[in-house]
Amino acid sequence: MENKVTIDPSKVGKYHMAVNCVILGFDKNELNVMLGKRKFVVDGNTVSDYILPGTLMHASESLDDTIQRVLTERLGLNGIRKFQIKTYSANECPVKRNDVEWVKQQIGTEIDTPISIAYLSGGKIGRKLNLQNALEGYEWYPINKAMEMPLAFNQTTMISDAMEFLRYHIEIEPLIVFNLLPSKFTALQLRTLYECIFGKTLDVRNFTKKMKQYEYVVPLDEVEKGVAHRAARYYRFDRVKYKRFRRGI
Amino acid sequence: MENKVTIDPSKVGKYHMAVNCVILGFDKNELNVMLGKRKFVVDGNTVSDYILPGTLMHASESLDDTIQRVLTERLGLNGIRKFQIKTYSANECPVKRNDVEWVKQQIGTEIDTPISIAYLSGGKIGRKLNLQNALEGYEWYPINKAMEMPLAFNQTTMISDAMEFLRYHIEIEPLIVFNLLPSKFTALQLRTLYECIFGKTLDVRNFTKKMKQYEYVVPLDEVEKGVAHRAARYYRFDRVKYKRFRRGI
Repeated sequence: MENKVTIDPSKVGKYHMAVNCVILGFDKNELNVMLGKRKFVVDGNTVSDYILPGTLMHASESLDDTIQRVLTERLGLNGIRKFQIKTYSANECPVKRNDVEWVKQQIGTEIDTPISIAYLSGGKIGRKLNLQNALEGYEWYPINKAMEMPLAFNQTTMISDAMEFLRYHIEIEPLIVFNLLPSKFTALQLRTLYECIFGKTLDVRNFTKKMKQYEYVVPLDEVEKGVAHRAARYYRFDRVKYKRFRRGI
Repeated sequence: MENKVTIDPSKVGKYHMAVNCVILGFDKNELNVMLGKRKFVVDGNTVSDYILPGTLMHASESLDDTIQRVLTERLGLNGIRKFQIKTYSANECPVKRNDVEWVKQQIGTEIDTPISIAYLSGGKIGRKLNLQNALEGYEWYPINKAMEMPLAFNQTTMISDAMEFLRYHIEIEPLIVFNLLPSKFTALQLRTLYECIFGKTLDVRNFTKKMKQYEYVVPLDEVEKGVAHRAARYYRFDRVKYKRFRRGI
């Protein structure tokens, strides 16, 4: 039997692809997102807002090429893991007048709302993410603050979906979380990061109990130095144990 | 500070969007995928292969509209849950000669490799999925067999990624699995489904122990009828308990 479906070519659309990356960084107290500043004039008024690192896909590129171009050219970031979060169609996120105008000023031509793809990645503040290599205007902003700031295109949704992705995957792929932590960390730092991600205070006893079940969180002999409070023990993340743990389905 | 990045408009590409759905169905022994038959002539030779339900996105549509159009028009399927799996760029999956030719025969014009988006959905064989409403040529094929069959475009990859998605999400979102089961099922059926998904035999004792920890798998008083072996107990999936269980992070 033959599949006789036909498609009406007059209805089929062609789209630009916008690729953006939600890059998170944890500075021991707060979860931050990397944003650039945008300043341009529309109808004589200056618009000042913020934008995720991103670009339009080139005809010669794969999606991986495009997202890596963004990370390399704009932020000097190489070799960090990227997770494809979600693809948004034009109709879900109609482009705003300001954004149409901004794109026109960037590429010299007006475009329809692109299909947009959000990626998630994690940088360690002041370490993996070398801000010296970043283009002017890119900085870390606390995630809660960023959600209230004026952002380009559908990027408030992208950040919110990236956080949702993180919350959803944290239980099966805690690797994402450990990528955000320094190589040695205290139980308090780990809990604070979880609290930032879930946006709520976690019970200390329950959290500690749970942490001890994860054999890939390995206590070190080392404790904090030069602190006023009782020095806390350091832990490290063990990749080999982690892999063994995850395989155990 | 201003973000001064500019984009070279001559390099920016525009793409068609191909949307496909991997629809799985479990018939108590085997995991199946819904495929259509494709038969067409290229350079005088008849090509006979298989294709996932899919289409090209219309200019007026959102992604949700497009995938729903596929499910409704081609398979008579309404109101089933869809998960966006992955977006593939043209460069990752260059289109084959046969597929270019097929698209040309469908829409009357040649197109470049589209960006393709894979969705995952589950249908219950013979129940939710009403094959009477499906277009000619759509049928269930055992997933292992499907992976060896000649498929259109990058659809072998799509099915393989959908299975990977399922394995990855099963621990945090077992709902996907219970959507594939009848409203009452035996422990053997549940285990068989898991075995199909993971492609390996699971230890009966461990599996039973694990299943008992999931308080949302509720034993019924009812047992199988008219079977030669010892009648097995039926279980049901409890949505309320499931939600409570999942919230308990």
